[in-house]
Amino acid sequence: MTTTSGINYSFGLWTVGWAAQDQFGAATRPVLDPARAVRKLAELGAWGFTFHDDDVVPFGSDAATRDRLLGEVRTAAEETGLTIEMVTTNLFSHPVFKDGGLTSNDRSVRRFALRKVLRNVDLTAELGAKTFVMWGGREGSEYDGAKDLHAALERYKEGVDLVASYIKAKGYDVKIALEPKPNEPRGDIFLPTVGHALGFIAELEHGDIVGLNPETGHEQMAGLNYTHGLAQALWSGKLFHIDLNGQRSIKFDQDLVFGHGDLLSAFFTVDLVENGFPGSPDAPRYTGPRHFDYKPSRTETDAGVWDSAKANMEMYDMLAAKAAAYRADPEVQEAFRTAGIFELATPTLAEGESVTELLLDTASFEDFDADAAAERDFGFVRLNQLALRHLVGS
Amino acid sequence: MTTTSGINYSFGLWTVGWAAQDQFGAATRPVLDPARAVRKLAELGAWGFTFHDDDVVPFGSDAATRDRLLGEVRTAAEETGLTIEMVTTNLFSHPVFKDGGLTSNDRSVRRFALRKVLRNVDLTAELGAKTFVMWGGREGSEYDGAKDLHAALERYKEGVDLVASYIKAKGYDVKIALEPKPNEPRGDIFLPTVGHALGFIAELEHGDIVGLNPETGHEQMAGLNYTHGLAQALWSGKLFHIDLNGQRSIKFDQDLVFGHGDLLSAFFTVDLVENGFPGSPDAPRYTGPRHFDYKPSRTETDAGVWDSAKANMEMYDMLAAKAAAYRADPEVQEAFRTAGIFELATPTLAEGESVTELLLDTASFEDFDADAAAERDFGFVRLNQLALRHLVGS
Amino acid sequence: MTTTSGINYSFGLWTVGWAAQDQFGAATRPVLDPARAVRKLAELGAWGFTFHDDDVVPFGSDAATRDRLLGEVRTAAEETGLTIEMVTTNLFSHPVFKDGGLTSNDRSVRRFALRKVLRNVDLTAELGAKTFVMWGGREGSEYDGAKDLHAALERYKEGVDLVASYIKAKGYDVKIALEPKPNEPRGDIFLPTVGHALGFIAELEHGDIVGLNPETGHEQMAGLNYTHGLAQALWSGKLFHIDLNGQRSIKFDQDLVFGHGDLLSAFFTVDLVENGFPGSPDAPRYTGPRHFDYKPSRTETDAGVWDSAKANMEMYDMLAAKAAAYRADPEVQEAFRTAGIFELATPTLAEGESVTELLLDTASFEDFDADAAAERDFGFVRLNQLALRHLVGS
Amino acid sequence: MTTTSGINYSFGLWTVGWAAQDQFGAATRPVLDPARAVRKLAELGAWGFTFHDDDVVPFGSDAATRDRLLGEVRTAAEETGLTIEMVTTNLFSHPVFKDGGLTSNDRSVRRFALRKVLRNVDLTAELGAKTFVMWGGREGSEYDGAKDLHAALERYKEGVDLVASYIKAKGYDVKIALEPKPNEPRGDIFLPTVGHALGFIAELEHGDIVGLNPETGHEQMAGLNYTHGLAQALWSGKLFHIDLNGQRSIKFDQDLVFGHGDLLSAFFTVDLVENGFPGSPDAPRYTGPRHFDYKPSRTETDAGVWDSAKANMEMYDMLAAKAAAYRADPEVQEAFRTAGIFELATPTLAEGESVTELLLDTASFEDFDADAAAERDFGFVRLNQLALRHLVGS
Repeated sequence: MTTTSGINYSFGLWTVGWAAQDQFGAATRPVLDPARAVRKLAELGAWGFTFHDDDVVPFGSDAATRDRLLGEVRTAAEETGLTIEMVTTNLFSHPVFKDGGLTSNDRSVRRFALRKVLRNVDLTAELGAKTFVMWGGREGSEYDGAKDLHAALERYKEGVDLVASYIKAKGYDVKIALEPKPNEPRGDIFLPTVGHALGFIAELEHGDIVGLNPETGHEQMAGLNYTHGLAQALWSGKLFHIDLNGQRSIKFDQDLVFGHGDLLSAFFTVDLVENGFPGSPDAPRYTGPRHFDYKPSRTETDAGVWDSAKANMEMYDMLAAKAAAYRADPEVQEAFRTAGIFELATPTLAEGESVTELLLDTASFEDFDADAAAERDFGFVRLNQLALRHLVGS
Repeated sequence: MTTTSGINYSFGLWTVGWAAQDQFGAATRPVLDPARAVRKLAELGAWGFTFHDDDVVPFGSDAATRDRLLGEVRTAAEETGLTIEMVTTNLFSHPVFKDGGLTSNDRSVRRFALRKVLRNVDLTAELGAKTFVMWGGREGSEYDGAKDLHAALERYKEGVDLVASYIKAKGYDVKIALEPKPNEPRGDIFLPTVGHALGFIAELEHGDIVGLNPETGHEQMAGLNYTHGLAQALWSGKLFHIDLNGQRSIKFDQDLVFGHGDLLSAFFTVDLVENGFPGSPDAPRYTGPRHFDYKPSRTETDAGVWDSAKANMEMYDMLAAKAAAYRADPEVQEAFRTAGIFELATPTLAEGESVTELLLDTASFEDFDADAAAERDFGFVRLNQLALRHLVGS
Repeated sequence: MTTTSGINYSFGLWTVGWAAQDQFGAATRPVLDPARAVRKLAELGAWGFTFHDDDVVPFGSDAATRDRLLGEVRTAAEETGLTIEMVTTNLFSHPVFKDGGLTSNDRSVRRFALRKVLRNVDLTAELGAKTFVMWGGREGSEYDGAKDLHAALERYKEGVDLVASYIKAKGYDVKIALEPKPNEPRGDIFLPTVGHALGFIAELEHGDIVGLNPETGHEQMAGLNYTHGLAQALWSGKLFHIDLNGQRSIKFDQDLVFGHGDLLSAFFTVDLVENGFPGSPDAPRYTGPRHFDYKPSRTETDAGVWDSAKANMEMYDMLAAKAAAYRADPEVQEAFRTAGIFELATPTLAEGESVTELLLDTASFEDFDADAAAERDFGFVRLNQLALRHLVGS
Repeated sequence: MTTTSGINYSFGLWTVGWAAQDQFGAATRPVLDPARAVRKLAELGAWGFTFHDDDVVPFGSDAATRDRLLGEVRTAAEETGLTIEMVTTNLFSHPVFKDGGLTSNDRSVRRFALRKVLRNVDLTAELGAKTFVMWGGREGSEYDGAKDLHAALERYKEGVDLVASYIKAKGYDVKIALEPKPNEPRGDIFLPTVGHALGFIAELEHGDIVGLNPETGHEQMAGLNYTHGLAQALWSGKLFHIDLNGQRSIKFDQDLVFGHGDLLSAFFTVDLVENGFPGSPDAPRYTGPRHFDYKPSRTETDAGVWDSAKANMEMYDMLAAKAAAYRADPEVQEAFRTAGIFELATPTLAEGESVTELLLDTASFEDFDADAAAERDFGFVRLNQLALRHLVGS
């Protein structure tokens, strides 16, 4: 079952399951039974769900408890038809990970972290999930002297390559998606942005099955444009998964409902995900689930939890409808042309043109009238206003 | 000639040459003759200098004027013994670049921009400079709808690859260094951070001669740790050049004197550049010039310009001396050991250990006492305080 | 003449008149004749306009030129029926103000600045404008040692009190509105936020005619909530004027079209300005003009300038219509009740209740069941989603 | 007992007592017995300490438990000679305060919060502490629609005025110090900065005994200059207490050791607190304790807790020594003169000069050569470099 829009929405069990304990206060909600969460999400129209190992099986549980608890969630998935589309590992809550998992200065912790990850990779494959997310929230430092930064990146590479090679060796149909974040809980987290993770993947031995899971608020915590980040990840063939939520400016990680943060940015995110690049029909598209990684506000109880879960899907549905109308509007298409949106898709060199030929083309330089060319009105503000008319308009 | 520390300092001519016109006010200083700037920098102890084409030759000058003006600078370089170590192209000041150079939506502008760049590449080689910096300050957008983001990255790649292939075809001993910046003058600039540029380079055809020129303040404008950025660039073998300056928190681009922004971060930057990674003696090191890209404050006149230029070198010298003492201190070395700095350089797997063997090592998981391991005190605060004792101490 | 909504919109002449020279590039548009700007704004449906002295009369003009240029603007105002509602003084562009006007370390500059201001106060009264804005963009520092901060505040007070006393002495019907900004062009500007200006006004001798002109983007450059800022200014009886525009997160001052920045925040700003506080019908309301202080993007030419001017008014009109429907919606009113919006307007003590009585009320403490009270679901997320349904909805 | 510098240092018991549970992870340290904390702080050289009610007496304890636990802390204070200099109330941890204390939309919560505060005021007086801090960390909202902002400020005023009037009625020798913070745990906190709190106090009925307790990191989380904030609070006669710590740029609340964040800013903070304003000898000075509100990093165990506590005092001592030398340096004094630091302390009008006389002084305007005056070199960069030579120098 899905929402009427037919879009595949999924949720982390830790989202609706967040008991609302924060840095300055105690939990305001009781622990939520994961199987109940699955059933409620199904009722609300979600298509799938995801979880960390510790969301379902408390850290340190014995094998029997683990089997029983995982069994309850699998049963709920089967009964509701919800897809378990992604699994991830908690390498941040237990005190042993206080200096990180794969990059802890303590080698025994790194080995333990790898084992915890590998066990979860097996589970991912067993459950048929296609994506294995790695968020290294504790991989980082507060103090620049506290890490050999080269060694940290070497260990991070060693860890991710080992996991990827294991996936390949096992023949699992699973891809790894790294989730960047600039800070919190560490002062500076390694792989702080989409870009840093892309640069990191390029150095991996098994980077072919490693991509990204960018989160809206994480990029915005560095003041970066989330949609630009998605675009570069797509361009690199690495947009494997997305974490949608809301953030209001540069501050602590808010994890608001998608669209409850930077709304205009959310519109363009949906426009890109649903409609692709306007002038590049053959460019890569995102085809994975629309996954929400948010937190129901601490002021809410059970009713507010489910209202907020619904709000994510409703926001996305509304924005998708608006984005479709925006793209279909002939005035917008005309404004695209005026703005040169399609012109940017034309290579700068003519087909077959060499550098030598460019250097000989006096129209490109010697006879180019820069002042005249500077007179062009791109109409960017008008184009943006057309988007806003669609988004807000009467 | 160099400062007494023997460190190779260089300056952009646009730094001391900034006439101090800003967004809200007119120039407070007269135009500075580039040749005079070279001579003054030599007097102050600099080792080299760098420039944009338009710093020396006003946009649109005829060939004779260009030759004459470049000649004056070359003469000054020869007479003073200063090295022209880097050249870069101004693709941001003239109105024709208002929507960018290599990624302008206007194809004629892109072609003009490429020609302007190629002419400068020839000049770079002719002058014997080894680095060609590309800062795409106008490559970006204010409005998410104003760009086909895939096409923009394609055009950026086309442009940089074309320049790199030209360098190779000509046999020039020149490398390209991309300079990331998150915003200003555009609302969002493409390749906003060190990471994004690394990810971009990984997609280039001629990425082998393309690396980075990270600027202190640019990373800090996104709240990112500059030293972490340098480390990842080094780890990727891509730290080709550096732009040192000062920035105070997330705001407009301040371009203060190096060390006059985040001082503690500057200490660790110098420590990394001068002393390398503490536990990774074989890791890549930065060997290029210590290049300053700052602006003498608008409140200063000629005296203040040269005082500020000197202040950059003095700051770096002072920090280098402190960092050397910090590394040499046995108490610091002991704190490194306690903190596990060297332990992080040890691979997580034993030499020759396979994943299968790791999975069979019950000490790593089944018998691992996470609670006991969590008791480790890394002593990070004490280590940081040792750094501060060296930096500030009596 | 006004827009069909009947809302009184006004514009600074420096907004549409911005020639688009920025920190990194030359002007992309010719100087705009102020009288033409007035006529165009009238055509587009604006109700009023505002200006800095130097917007109309270049710094240093002789008396005859001043009279002629001011005359042209007054004629345009008379012919179009546009109201000159506010006048302000440029104490930031000329190099003499490089260390500020009223707080320059140079006393002769302070005296000159005061004279420039006083001349403009006379003009304000003569033109019938009711508001005199003071934006101290250059009052501040880059270096903490560069100012005696106590003396700076003393001089700022001296300056503003002198201007206010002059207004009173002359019997002018004019109020002063201070405009806070956290930084840019100075590293740190004095009176960085709405709050700091309110605190400053409280120390003035003539603070009764001194209030605020808060600008959307300026508060957001400090990560602050603009609507919260307006609310505190209203609560203090000090919201004399507003500067509406758009800003995207914490970065340089973008001056985008209103609503092209943080859209959701803009909705609530309009909701407050148009509809007041939901549960406090007797609270102060803002009754001044809806004034835009934005910059047409540098990529635009003349057409884009006017498109962007219109876009401000259209955005505000659209948001006002949505806000009206939001407030009128019975479901929203019910959600207000659930959320306790109206309950917050009830004093915490009962009418006439003393502290002693509160201390004797065991229901308030001894018998209060905190755990039970903590169960309340405020429904804040649902309420926010209702707002978004109105703002974006189908 | 104090450190050798003789400076009165104090610590919140919640600082060393923080068990290191954060938003993403469980506690890494056991609960610390408050009396042991007092004894350890005394050993390390602290002069005083402070606490929230709930730091010593768990929420909901019965009267006997409360008496016993408070008794243990008092005994420790008496035995060590440490001064209990400030007490504060926890209105943020228990779920009942999830929408705030004094401004909760729930009136019963507001009444309970007031009672909790009043009980603590009695305790403050009983213990002889002179300062009662109110940090309204939960007073705020995530959603602009979730509060009647006027009512919120009215309730905040009602609450603070009631507490102040109670203090007066009881004849307690206690002052209230409000602690501003921009966000976290709420999306936007009321009274987000020093300025907003000053503006708020100006509207109180009993504002004469209400002042500020500004925290380093809280101001820096809004990108504001902490030292500027202290200066405005002093200028308003409202700097009643200070919370010193470290923060690195705009992000979540880091609560690092003082000086481990923005070091250069910390230097100027100490310079102001220890040495006053350079050109205003008669200006108000801060005379209260040097109070640290920081968190030992989560990576540390007991040893690291005490190392970090010591580091705060050592940092302050080192900075105080450097600041003393800086002020005593004749070259600095000369640079002050050049920069016009003392000149700013001279009123802009001559003694007895009226506005009319200023208007008649042609030297101030008609004959003022703005271009010539603009030539002044303030030497701000050189002055800053002199500070850095003292701070870092060999």
